[in-house]
This record gives sequence, C-alpha cells and structure tokens, in this order.
Amino acid sequence: MKDVAVIGLGLIKWGELWEKSLRSMFVEAALKAIEDAEVDHVDSMYVGCMSSGLFVNQEHLGPLMADYLGICPAPATRVESACASGGVAFRQGLIDVASGMSEIVLVGGVEKMTDVDGGGATFALATAADQEYEVYNGVTFPGLYAMMARAHMHRYGTTREQLAQVSVKNHENGSKNPYAQYQMRVTVEQVINSTMVADPLTILDCSPITDGAAAVILCPVPLAKKISKKPIVRVTGTGHATDTIAIHQRKDITHLAAAEASARQAYRMAEVGPDDINFAEVHDCFTIAEILAIEALGFVERGKGGVATVNGETAIGGRIPINTSGGLKSKGHPVGATGVAQICEVVGQLRGESGERQVEGARRGMAQNMGGTCASSVVHILEVM
Amino acid sequence: MKDVAVIGLGLIKWGELWEKSLRSMFVEAALKAIEDAEVDHVDSMYVGCMSSGLFVNQEHLGPLMADYLGICPAPATRVESACASGGVAFRQGLIDVASGMSEIVLVGGVEKMTDVDGGGATFALATAADQEYEVYNGVTFPGLYAMMARAHMHRYGTTREQLAQVSVKNHENGSKNPYAQYQMRVTVEQVINSTMVADPLTILDCSPITDGAAAVILCPVPLAKKISKKPIVRVTGTGHATDTIAIHQRKDITHLAAAEASARQAYRMAEVGPDDINFAEVHDCFTIAEILAIEALGFVERGKGGVATVNGETAIGGRIPINTSGGLKSKGHPVGATGVAQICEVVGQLRGESGERQVEGARRGMAQNMGGTCASSVVHILEVM
Repeated sequence: MKDVAVIGLGLIKWGELWEKSLRSMFVEAALKAIEDAEVDHVDSMYVGCMSSGLFVNQEHLGPLMADYLGICPAPATRVESACASGGVAFRQGLIDVASGMSEIVLVGGVEKMTDVDGGGATFALATAADQEYEVYNGVTFPGLYAMMARAHMHRYGTTREQLAQVSVKNHENGSKNPYAQYQMRVTVEQVINSTMVADPLTILDCSPITDGAAAVILCPVPLAKKISKKPIVRVTGTGHATDTIAIHQRKDITHLAAAEASARQAYRMAEVGPDDINFAEVHDCFTIAEILAIEALGFVERGKGGVATVNGETAIGGRIPINTSGGLKSKGHPVGATGVAQICEVVGQLRGESGERQVEGARRGMAQNMGGTCASSVVHILEVM
Repeated sequence: MKDVAVIGLGLIKWGELWEKSLRSMFVEAALKAIEDAEVDHVDSMYVGCMSSGLFVNQEHLGPLMADYLGICPAPATRVESACASGGVAFRQGLIDVASGMSEIVLVGGVEKMTDVDGGGATFALATAADQEYEVYNGVTFPGLYAMMARAHMHRYGTTREQLAQVSVKNHENGSKNPYAQYQMRVTVEQVINSTMVADPLTILDCSPITDGAAAVILCPVPLAKKISKKPIVRVTGTGHATDTIAIHQRKDITHLAAAEASARQAYRMAEVGPDDINFAEVHDCFTIAEILAIEALGFVERGKGGVATVNGETAIGGRIPINTSGGLKSKGHPVGATGVAQICEVVGQLRGESGERQVEGARRGMAQNMGGTCASSVVHILEVM
C-alpha cells in the first residue's frame, strides 16, 4: 500500500445555517480544502453523509456534489455509517489513494439537519439504531446513552459531576474554535441544572443538531512532498470495526468493543500504543460517550474516564488532550461531517495552526468516530513528518 | 494494485417478498456467496443500498448486516449511489482487495422496496434526481426517461416498436432465470398496449419495484487459485464516472456521457475495446435506458440501439447478447442489489453455469450499472482465466 498524506483542509462555521443548503455547504468546504491543498483537480471524491434521504429528501450525493463542485466526470461515492459516515468516508479515500487507483482524492462530509419538522431529526438519527428491536420499542439515542451512563455509574462509581466535566472541558476548548457552533463556556452547575433529556443526561450533556460540512484532500506522500508548502501529515494507522447494532445483545454496555477493536488495528498498523498519542479527537455525542471512548482507546484505565476528566488529564495542557476542537458537544455534530472535521482538527494541530487551543509539541494525533451506540467505529492515527 | 478475482456468488429469488426483511434477505444472499466461495471468514464487507432510510427507516447497514451475518468486528461499509449502489459497492470491495487492506471481501447489495404506502417507492426513488430542480417541479423517473426516449425518437427515428423489443428480449431471457421476479414472456403488442406510465413508456417498458439481495466474494487472484475449485474469474477493468444530476444541464439527453466515460476507463484498464466483449449486463431501468447504454458503451453506433435490438444483435445467440439475466426489466430491480446481481450473472456466464441462457464461448463480459438518469455509472469487465 502507498503512504498517504493529508494536504488540504476545509471547514465552514457550523450552526443552524438557514441560508445554506446541503450542496452549498459541501461545495464551500470542498473549495476551501482544494484551495488549502493548492491542487488544480481531484481524481476522485468520497462524500460522508448519514441520512440526507430523511433529512432533505436527497440521495445520490456523489454525482450531486461532483456536479456542483464542477468535477464531473470524476468518480464520486457516498459512504454511510450513521454518525461515523465521515470517518468511514475518509478511510475509503485513504484506501483509494493507497491502492494506486486514484492520486488526488477529496473526502467531504456533510449533513443538513435543521430543515425538518419537530422530532424529525430525532427520528432520522434513530435509524442508526436497530429499527426492529430498539426503535420500535420507543428508545432514541439519548435514552440508549443514558442507559450506558447509568451502567457505568453503577459499575465504576462514575458521578454526575464527572459527566458534566466533559461538557465543561469541551465548551472551554470550543470557545477557542471560530468554526464551533456553541462557543460559550459552561459550568458543572449549568450542565447539571439544564433541561433533562434522558436521566442522567441533560441537554448540556448532549451534542446539538447542526448543519455543517468539512473536507480534506489526500494524496500519496511523495506527491505531497512535491506540491505542499505546509508540514506533511501522514496517515500512519487506520482501523474500522463493527459491533452488534442493538445494545441489548452486548456482553457489557459499559465498554465500546468496536472502538477498542478499531484502535487496536490502527495502533498495530502505526506501530504505536496509546501512550504514544499526543492528543485525540473522540466521538463525544454525549458526555458519557467521551468517557467510554477514552477508556476503549486505552488512554485511561477502564472505569477511570470520569476521574481522569475531573483531574484535568484530558484538558489542553493535560496528559492527553481530548477534543481540542470542542468536540461534538461544543463544535456541533452534523453527523456525516463530524468524522472529516475531526481529521481537520488533528491535521491542524499537527501543522501547528490551532492558535489558542494549540497542543504544545503535537507530533502524533488520533481521530475516533463512531456510529450509533458504537456499532461502528473508525480510528485514524496521523503524524507530522 | 493486486489482481482480484470473484470466487463466490449468492442470489435469492426476487419479488414482493412479504415474509422477508431487509436484513434477512441480505444475510441469505451473503451466506450463499460464502458457501459458493467455500471460505470460512470474510475480512471486510461492503453493502450497496440506495435508500433504506426512506424505504424501511433503517440506516447504518454496515454493522447491522455484519451483526446479523455474524462477522463482527469485521469492518462493514454501506455505499450509496442511487440505483448504482451495488455496482459502486463492488468497486469499493475491489479497491479494498487491490490495495492489500483486506484479503477476502464480501460485497452485498440489498433493497426492500415494497414495505411502503402507495407512492412511497416513487418518492424514495425520486431522491436519486435533483430534489431542488427536478423533483420539486413534479418530475419522477418514468417522466425523465420518457423525455430521453422522445428526444432519441426525434433525433434518430427510434420507434415505439424498437423500445418494446427491448422488453420482449429481456423477458425472453428472464423466463430462463429461476431468480427473476417476472418470468413470463411478453409480445411487442402487449408492451405497447399495457398501461401508460409516461408517454411513450408503458408499464412493460419500466423495471418493477422489487425486494431482493445479491452478494459476491472477492479475493486476490493467487488466493483464488489456491482455494477455488471453480473457473477463476478475474476483474480486469473498472470504471466509475459522474454527470450532472439534472438532465436539463446536459448538452445532449440522448447520450449517457457518464456511461461512456466509465466504460472508457474500464476498457483502458482491461486493454480491450467494445468488440472484445462477448456479452454484457446493462442498466435497463426503462427500455430506452438499454438502448442508450449499448450506444454509450460502444456496442452499437449512436442512434442504432433500437435497430440493433430488433435485428436480434443483442439477443442470446446474437452478436453481443445484452441482459442475459433478464435485466432489470424481467429479473426485477431492487435498486441497491442490482449492480451486485449483474456481477453474479456475468461471473455465472463466464463459469458456464447459466443453463438455458448460457452464452456460447463466453470468455469476457461486462456489467454496467447506473444511478438516476446516469448521473453516475460504474462499469466492470470480467474475464475467465
């Protein structure tokens, strides 16, 4: 397989973007990535999107986006893995370049989530769970993660305050990210006293509904060295794993087995371990999700995610900064775009472009993106050369 | 890139399968492919599906199918390109094996289309067109292809009888395919006099609404030679191209530019031309689509597709047999499964397993699958070694 580098990043400000459509957001981010990479064409494209069919009645996103970006007849493929759609699209772009099939590949993620009636977004998101055994019985994602949170609290003594601290930290980081949807800081008290969604999770434990897009450009490392004027960031590890779609079929709902399996693959490929990672973007769709993720990825012992968060180990300046971008919680969570935006944050950090939220000495970072209750997880390790 | 072979095929009988669900159809086809290939595991999986979100309120098909097939934690990725979803999923599986990332890859396609209220299927299928400029104004796919048919009739003198003959031929072939949804023969008179859908296309010019699945197993050629007891079929060419999503933006709606571009890529890679292909499965979602496809792929001169069909050139025993399986018209068109089933037919023919519809001396075949009005097209060339 060929060595692959990320040479272009494109982000737009996320939020409730009433004036922007699915296609216009995608094209805006894609053009920024093309400009950042200083390339004059792309050979193929991947589009990560979870459910444009249900959100805006539009499938067939490959040619739609290729058309509006002006790159037809280049091949363009839409990839879906619920909230991991962006991360999995990135992996497909990586495999495409690594195989030698394409040279310059654009990977973009997009989701337009606010153009639905009340409840429409929750309904569309629930299609990431098992429709026949979970959703049919009335459960939605806040409920599923609330059960995982309660089990973790029961088993490990994780506290309500520890969960809240994830939100506090991520909003602190997001307050320094000009692209984030919610740039305000919050306190533990505010999190705990905000509107209850699914006990113990309040609205400030939950990632928001967001419109947004993100894009990156990939190419072989030798070509990157020739054309890029920026520090070259190489993808040294990739991992992708699945688990049962429904949580009732799992042995242990306090452990994300697919996150662990995907990380194991990526660590093996990159020939590193958790201690070698300087910082990571992980999938904090709910505060409990970040705690489960940092345990599954091996950054902290099982059951110690909450304690480590309160101790500041995962803050910028701590032992292993997590979600320097603000995470899904503060930056927003346009589901198909999230995995690609994580790559943008990791590459930005490795290039030293993260301003106020820069991690000192960042040489190797990780992005972990998951779908549903971690029925799918995709992990990438990136290193600056 | 590594040389890749297809070593397993799995088909189920298609139709209105009230007793089968999305997941059960997929698993049934996947298990058949695994059994046919005689492999004891798969390293990764691709699922082609157009719009399970709108058809059955279920996204996140990668882990769902991996779970029910019992292959977790193997990576599993859903790929969407409207009615070309299956063909594009096959291409992603091919790239995965060619890159060396995975060794034994399962590619399955599936669609459950009949579990919707009246008009629901037409609405879901319309998401393959431009929602903002085409569907908003009320056009659906029969209308779009009817416009393309009228333009072809006006420009080249294609007749109503020539269109009908495509349906007659494909039903003749499908009558010999035990997996086909509609195994009855039809006459030109029956086609012309059946219920009008969008002038000049009657219901017997249109592919049906179908529940179905199909699957194949891919692996590197050296491994195939070691483990397979059947003739080894190699993928020698792949091509994938896009065009504008809306037909009003095209220079010429009587020509499928993306089909031509994808075929050009595949011919170049396989180092062959149209005259070297012994038979092909092409995307006959409407009778006019087959005529446009065989012209774009270079099997007949532009404008001569109708004449060639009436002359028997595309029948089994003719110069270039087209849609020996019965095509989408007779075999059925569960949109995400179609592209994978085309590969099954081509490989089956190359192995000499096609019984009554066997093409004599079949050594090299093509599969062409397209999305929407050919806003995306994917072509594969396969050869028996």
